[in-house]
Amino acid sequence: MGTVTPSPWKQLLLSAIESNSHLKHSYFVQFATIGSNGRPSNRSVVFRGFEENSDRIQISTDFRTRKIEELNHCPFAEICWYFTDSWEQFRINGRVDVIDGSNPNPAKLQQREKLWLASSIKSRLQYLGPNPGLPCLSEQSPDEFFLDPSSGPVATFCLLVLEPDQVQPYTILN
Amino acid sequence: MGTVTPSPWKQLLLSAIESNSHLKHSYFVQFATIGSNGRPSNRSVVFRGFEENSDRIQISTDFRTRKIEELNHCPFAEICWYFTDSWEQFRINGRVDVIDGSNPNPAKLQQREKLWLASSIKSRLQYLGPNPGLPCLSEQSPDEFFLDPSSGPVATFCLLVLEPDQVQPYTILN
Repeated sequence: MGTVTPSPWKQLLLSAIESNSHLKHSYFVQFATIGSNGRPSNRSVVFRGFEENSDRIQISTDFRTRKIEELNHCPFAEICWYFTDSWEQFRINGRVDVIDGSNPNPAKLQQREKLWLASSIKSRLQYLGPNPGLPCLSEQSPDEFFLDPSSGPVATFCLLVLEPDQVQPYTILN
Repeated sequence: MGTVTPSPWKQLLLSAIESNSHLKHSYFVQFATIGSNGRPSNRSVVFRGFEENSDRIQISTDFRTRKIEELNHCPFAEICWYFTDSWEQFRINGRVDVIDGSNPNPAKLQQREKLWLASSIKSRLQYLGPNPGLPCLSEQSPDEFFLDPSSGPVATFCLLVLEPDQVQPYTILN
């Protein structure tokens, strides 16, 4: 198989990620969905890379968060990715595939496991807490939960895969 | 009249704005609406302050942008305001009032004019360009357009006022 050239927007995005990579917060993107009350719903999530050899964007989330229910009602989302150092913005709209442990597709389950094992232990521990959506508090000792580093994803760990079909990249006035 | 104590979330937000004010990008927030195709729509806008003695959030925008049409269909928006230095996030949901030059309410027109006059000349010039939503390019000479600094808002200048009714403040895992 030959090498696939990334789409023009993906090339621009990869270049923006590269030039802002010294800022840890550059991997935070705002992910909008439609709330079950019909209103817009918007929160920060972490970009977890592209699916291999594709334009599809991976995000991990807790199955107990409101966005899962929202995506079950309306499977579309728009990511607004704003880079604070280069003043670039990417709006990425597409359909989202929600992949939890009950997914019937073995390839998707494998991808979910791969992302789990690639996550830090600190990040994995978030999925064991009693409150989805709320981060581990720093005063909470990680020893409260036991986690075997080699074991697969817990039930609350969910992979979201956004398949972009409308992308607008541009530079904001500085 | 006595002094009105701000709501608890507004106090938290004012404190976050204060402690992140050294970062110019702290005034950029992500503003989600419902697209006319029924999908979520999400972009960065600039926070232009609270309406005097209220919790209402002001944003200025070009009347020709897609968000105006979207707000005419569904007047609700959710702001996701993520502070990169303090790792705080505020989700602010509410109804949006679109105030352009044809608004019948004199107080609202006055507020729109006030915001126009408080904007920088560079920011005002954006509303004269041929492309809404696209910022002035730096190589474009401001001399191309003439703007009397004391004259009122141009027709494309629009004030959005979000009346928050659901607010979730929290700190993100660092």
